[in-house]
Amino acid sequence: MHQEIERLAALALSEDVGQEDLTTEATVPDDLRCDVRLVAKQDGVLSGIDLFQATLRLAGADIEDWNARFDGERFLNGEVIATFNGRARGVLTGERTALNFLQHMCGIATLTAAFVEQLDGLACRIADTRKTMPLLRRIEKQAVVDGGGVNHRYNLATGILIKENHIAAAGGIQEALLRARQSASHLMRVEIEVTSLDELQQALEGGAEVVLLDNMDLDTMSAAVAFTRANYPGVLIEASGNASLDRVRGMAETGVDLISVGALTHSATAIDLSLLIEHA
Amino acid sequence: MHQEIERLAALALSEDVGQEDLTTEATVPDDLRCDVRLVAKQDGVLSGIDLFQATLRLAGADIEDWNARFDGERFLNGEVIATFNGRARGVLTGERTALNFLQHMCGIATLTAAFVEQLDGLACRIADTRKTMPLLRRIEKQAVVDGGGVNHRYNLATGILIKENHIAAAGGIQEALLRARQSASHLMRVEIEVTSLDELQQALEGGAEVVLLDNMDLDTMSAAVAFTRANYPGVLIEASGNASLDRVRGMAETGVDLISVGALTHSATAIDLSLLIEHA
Amino acid sequence: MHQEIERLAALALSEDVGQEDLTTEATVPDDLRCDVRLVAKQDGVLSGIDLFQATLRLAGADIEDWNARFDGERFLNGEVIATFNGRARGVLTGERTALNFLQHMCGIATLTAAFVEQLDGLACRIADTRKTMPLLRRIEKQAVVDGGGVNHRYNLATGILIKENHIAAAGGIQEALLRARQSASHLMRVEIEVTSLDELQQALEGGAEVVLLDNMDLDTMSAAVAFTRANYPGVLIEASGNASLDRVRGMAETGVDLISVGALTHSATAIDLSLLIEHA
Amino acid sequence: MHQEIERLAALALSEDVGQEDLTTEATVPDDLRCDVRLVAKQDGVLSGIDLFQATLRLAGADIEDWNARFDGERFLNGEVIATFNGRARGVLTGERTALNFLQHMCGIATLTAAFVEQLDGLACRIADTRKTMPLLRRIEKQAVVDGGGVNHRYNLATGILIKENHIAAAGGIQEALLRARQSASHLMRVEIEVTSLDELQQALEGGAEVVLLDNMDLDTMSAAVAFTRANYPGVLIEASGNASLDRVRGMAETGVDLISVGALTHSATAIDLSLLIEHA
Amino acid sequence: MHQEIERLAALALSEDVGQEDLTTEATVPDDLRCDVRLVAKQDGVLSGIDLFQATLRLAGADIEDWNARFDGERFLNGEVIATFNGRARGVLTGERTALNFLQHMCGIATLTAAFVEQLDGLACRIADTRKTMPLLRRIEKQAVVDGGGVNHRYNLATGILIKENHIAAAGGIQEALLRARQSASHLMRVEIEVTSLDELQQALEGGAEVVLLDNMDLDTMSAAVAFTRANYPGVLIEASGNASLDRVRGMAETGVDLISVGALTHSATAIDLSLLIEHA
Amino acid sequence: MHQEIERLAALALSEDVGQEDLTTEATVPDDLRCDVRLVAKQDGVLSGIDLFQATLRLAGADIEDWNARFDGERFLNGEVIATFNGRARGVLTGERTALNFLQHMCGIATLTAAFVEQLDGLACRIADTRKTMPLLRRIEKQAVVDGGGVNHRYNLATGILIKENHIAAAGGIQEALLRARQSASHLMRVEIEVTSLDELQQALEGGAEVVLLDNMDLDTMSAAVAFTRANYPGVLIEASGNASLDRVRGMAETGVDLISVGALTHSATAIDLSLLIEHA
Repeated sequence: MHQEIERLAALALSEDVGQEDLTTEATVPDDLRCDVRLVAKQDGVLSGIDLFQATLRLAGADIEDWNARFDGERFLNGEVIATFNGRARGVLTGERTALNFLQHMCGIATLTAAFVEQLDGLACRIADTRKTMPLLRRIEKQAVVDGGGVNHRYNLATGILIKENHIAAAGGIQEALLRARQSASHLMRVEIEVTSLDELQQALEGGAEVVLLDNMDLDTMSAAVAFTRANYPGVLIEASGNASLDRVRGMAETGVDLISVGALTHSATAIDLSLLIEHA
Repeated sequence: MHQEIERLAALALSEDVGQEDLTTEATVPDDLRCDVRLVAKQDGVLSGIDLFQATLRLAGADIEDWNARFDGERFLNGEVIATFNGRARGVLTGERTALNFLQHMCGIATLTAAFVEQLDGLACRIADTRKTMPLLRRIEKQAVVDGGGVNHRYNLATGILIKENHIAAAGGIQEALLRARQSASHLMRVEIEVTSLDELQQALEGGAEVVLLDNMDLDTMSAAVAFTRANYPGVLIEASGNASLDRVRGMAETGVDLISVGALTHSATAIDLSLLIEHA
Repeated sequence: MHQEIERLAALALSEDVGQEDLTTEATVPDDLRCDVRLVAKQDGVLSGIDLFQATLRLAGADIEDWNARFDGERFLNGEVIATFNGRARGVLTGERTALNFLQHMCGIATLTAAFVEQLDGLACRIADTRKTMPLLRRIEKQAVVDGGGVNHRYNLATGILIKENHIAAAGGIQEALLRARQSASHLMRVEIEVTSLDELQQALEGGAEVVLLDNMDLDTMSAAVAFTRANYPGVLIEASGNASLDRVRGMAETGVDLISVGALTHSATAIDLSLLIEHA
Repeated sequence: MHQEIERLAALALSEDVGQEDLTTEATVPDDLRCDVRLVAKQDGVLSGIDLFQATLRLAGADIEDWNARFDGERFLNGEVIATFNGRARGVLTGERTALNFLQHMCGIATLTAAFVEQLDGLACRIADTRKTMPLLRRIEKQAVVDGGGVNHRYNLATGILIKENHIAAAGGIQEALLRARQSASHLMRVEIEVTSLDELQQALEGGAEVVLLDNMDLDTMSAAVAFTRANYPGVLIEASGNASLDRVRGMAETGVDLISVGALTHSATAIDLSLLIEHA
Repeated sequence: MHQEIERLAALALSEDVGQEDLTTEATVPDDLRCDVRLVAKQDGVLSGIDLFQATLRLAGADIEDWNARFDGERFLNGEVIATFNGRARGVLTGERTALNFLQHMCGIATLTAAFVEQLDGLACRIADTRKTMPLLRRIEKQAVVDGGGVNHRYNLATGILIKENHIAAAGGIQEALLRARQSASHLMRVEIEVTSLDELQQALEGGAEVVLLDNMDLDTMSAAVAFTRANYPGVLIEASGNASLDRVRGMAETGVDLISVGALTHSATAIDLSLLIEHA
Repeated sequence: MHQEIERLAALALSEDVGQEDLTTEATVPDDLRCDVRLVAKQDGVLSGIDLFQATLRLAGADIEDWNARFDGERFLNGEVIATFNGRARGVLTGERTALNFLQHMCGIATLTAAFVEQLDGLACRIADTRKTMPLLRRIEKQAVVDGGGVNHRYNLATGILIKENHIAAAGGIQEALLRARQSASHLMRVEIEVTSLDELQQALEGGAEVVLLDNMDLDTMSAAVAFTRANYPGVLIEASGNASLDRVRGMAETGVDLISVGALTHSATAIDLSLLIEHA
């Protein structure tokens, strides 16, 4: 993760700075230092503080006296999340990019935590999906973990999930499962998406090791869980589809093992954070 | 833009595919082709259709009979945005990444269009900010244009905007402006952020060529516009701060030239789009 | 795989050609074409013919009339594997690099096939390991498949395998398994290495989903298989350690599911192949 | 070489680690350190110890108390080659890649040393060829030197060697030599491959500065050396073709200056080495 | 600028060193250190001393006791520009590349200073153009600043300058200006090239914010300045075309704001500098 | 060379275009095409026409009806060097970069040709040095060849040249030669720089295969050549130092084999060339 953080910070700074920060070079003395407080402007869950720091450091902030909260901790509107002393030029040049990262990651962690909170007392877990912002999957998946969720497969090479179109292309649920299980590494379980009890039954008979109940109403989902637990006790059950904050507890109460939520990453909004800077 | 599209599509596919798409390789015949419809699941403004297509192409979709709407056009829930025929493997492997791009760009274009609509009949324009998703600025700025907005400076090297902390570091508004104007290329205007009428007056006396009225209430903003128009008719006026859909028309009616809105890029949510695939 | 092939061919050519092929530029006319036969100088299994072709193409061979055997096919000493017509300069410049790739991949495929042949009639499979040539894992794993073997996890991110040192660090087999299972994705099985029946029992009690019997003598291995099949029928069994051509059938006959063989990739020797070139 | 070592270590780790080392992250405490011994499991010649160390360092091993033998030294089965203390996570994550490099380089150095040993007391030297593992030429050539051999040209840009196909394309030995000498830098000697005494004579008359006797039997080779030494005393003589350990001394006794051996790099097998790890 | 310096130094060293510095490795002891003086062999203006140092450092010079003049300072033939102590191997390997950079940058700074000197007492400034050495624009623009000049736009994305061919393509001066002003960011001024008083008048009426008087004789230029100052006092005036050292003062005396000079970067010759090395 | 041309064109365009060509996008219709003539504004020798074309092509010029002179040919002021038809946007966007390359390469080829012309009737050749523009060595060396010169070693890895500081570090001429010859590949000749007859004699006794007479007056040079030819007939002789156009024939008449001239690459000025564009 460390090298990925450095790589992302460098790419993002290069994007935002270009040849040089014209304004800061012109107006801020080269040797001026400042005291900085990173302050929350709304409640949230912290995620990305290392990337925030790495970005400022790469921007030339020459950070000293760094003191910060940890990823995964909750913060309230008005709380100080980090304090440090730095070169004013580096801080001002890196500020926007560092905040762009942090606000996005905190947004995801905070939304994830809200989902997780709904499941209080249940064994069911909240998982992310592949509906991530292109090029930012690594840090988005980290933010989901910081918010208390778990990660689904990282990408198409690290897990097998047979969807509707794969089934159609293979010529049926059983044929698709057969092919996938032959090709699967012995370290991988084969998961398949089903949308009805009939498809579920075919999938379980075909040797599915994980089933994804997609877009089922709660009654069907309950029946699906009951059937699976009774007949195929070793099979894991995931649910997905319209998993809103309102609906997620009901989904979990059907007894599924995990619920995957695309909105965690494709529609989290930024958490408002701000740098207060005092020149020495 | 063409090379940037290719570059982003390749990077994003590499992130999502990894070594190989295990599921598709196992279940989908190599030579199977399919007819595909890209369908809207909610109303919106199209942006990113070239990137969508490039992503599928790079994933091996071998696209034929491509037929699609144009960026900037509005679509309604249920409308078909594009149709094409392609290799099933390539379509399934590239589907998620292509949609991740397109849904995000449409999200930004749609939100931008909502802001622009509020200003109907006024000369005032909606601009983006540097509050973009790191590594995706280029396409996010394109989405703002597709939604009817205009682009603020691309990055720190392509425009001068003196903010509060630059002023403090330079020792005052006039000193900051003096330094910035000496350093500025003859092709650039110097912009400065002010938060009160007093600061505005100092900025205009100091030779500001563009002023940014930040976080002013509407009365102050109106007074600021009036003062500037009366005394410094060549100066351009930008406004920013809490520019919500509710509030933006009021801001525009004060007579400012443009309003910059961070939410366009930092908090747009994905537009729901879906691929309907029929195997030949 | 296609993009990886292009990438490897380009890097390898750049390594072998440097600024320019001094000899060929000096001695071979620019427009000379030639007929080429790729001939086997020993028996083997073909692997890497696409990479071979891509390398020549990138070297400027302008290939026409390409006709070649397929990966996975056996060839005998003296057989023609491919024929084509090409620009003489490109063929000569790319020849060595193209053969370096092909001879190495055929070496691995041929050695793998020899192992697989030993297991004729048994359900047990031959798998590779992570003992690959750095930077060449992708094509080496392909060569194993072309030789009839299967791939173990691609890298440390695509599978969990707890080894002796992880156990020691975690404080015991059960603790290591507990931690690994908590952290594992629902799509992954947890594998653990054991070297005795006692360790095996602990591992199975701790919830191991796959066990790796490492460096056991055949009697112990048989006992391990019997115990596992009797008490934990869903658990997969892998064996490793000194899996030579002489010993591998005996290992397989104990009833293990797969045998992993480091030598497939770390010690395969090149298959002798040669280009016969006739200038038009 | 230092930058190349860093580059290779980073690329190879990235290949083997992927997004993260799932097993080690789950099972090994973040702050655990360990004492490590690198031990030989067979006799050999050391090569690549810097790359081994760099790989572990990049993997996060935070190495202390490093103590190691030097490249080029012989080691016996059971000997300790290096000892150090490191972070357990980094050591376990980097172990396989570090060993993959080291075992391959030691394999080459050990094989080279075996060839060199055959020539004891003779002035003849053992050289490598361009039959290297793609992307690993730099370290393979270093391993040859560590084993006591010398390097032939690094690539096609750093030396001129006219082979059979160049001769055919140019229209004859003399024409090929003429073109090559006109094009050659004044700092380079022109070498040409010959397979008979007749070709040798033509080559020497044509101004060859180095001759490569390819695939000659020993008698012909002796005659070729005698003729060259008598008539063209300044010309260097290389021999190649089937230079096995059995045959190489006979070849050297014909009086050639150097013998190039493709097997050094294309068919060296890994030397068995092992990390013994003790957690503090 | 710091990261760009590192990047350029690394690329240039890689170009000049290749696999290794054969001569230095063979002849210079690994631990030998030396005292070095960088001496001017002709008068000039210093530019690029940081890049010079970075190059030697990356080459392994392990620099100590560094003592150097500053960029922008004048030096005379025979003066010592820098002194330091370093590893002999690193100094010798990096010497040529470090000097290639420094001599080129000093050449540009020195030529720029000669132009600037001609304008002594006038407000007119000397600017560079886009006629730079490909891949070296960043450091060439720095050298112009070190010589007392100012930078024109960095590239095509950081300024709008309408030239003759744009006018023709757009269908006239006024149409080109209209389009450019609509597309221009509010932070940019639109510049247009004119070659006659008639074109000038059209440009000013069309809203040009900066005019470039190209290839005008001095009388026309004077008239153009007079007309512009009288009628469009806010408009900036640039002149270009055959701006030789002989002619530049005359151009400046017409009252233009800046004069752009392609020769600063496309035709500056290297300043002769030399390293005097004393081995300890 | 082809891939290097593409690589350089892409890097240089990226440098000059940045995010987009604001002016051309705004003013030139997307589908406008134009007829273009590349015209010489002074006499010269052509070099770089492929790179010129590749740059325009990459910029989107969609070139048709390409008709151009060949590298190495002389052109006169006013002559048309190339004609073609292209997309106006691509031509205007790529024009400056394409010309920057071409004017620089023609500058070097033209200066080289002027030196070569001085040696008319003599066997002596003109060579370049390592005093090249960083990052542009490949094309500068090509330009020297196009001007009729020959290339010295490409970089420090492709030739051995012992200079004054290597001699001092090694402890003397003979010691330096001994070490270099031991380390040299059998395909390389060892060259050494000498500045007096005494040094020359030591070098020849020490086995130098090429001598570089550096900064000698013509009488000493003549004596050096005479001594070498008489006593070491196989040794090649290079001369360098202050090789101006005035002085170079005198140097050549001493009988040296080649003269290396740093100015060819470090101080060639651009040849004035211009694109005449006519919109269809």
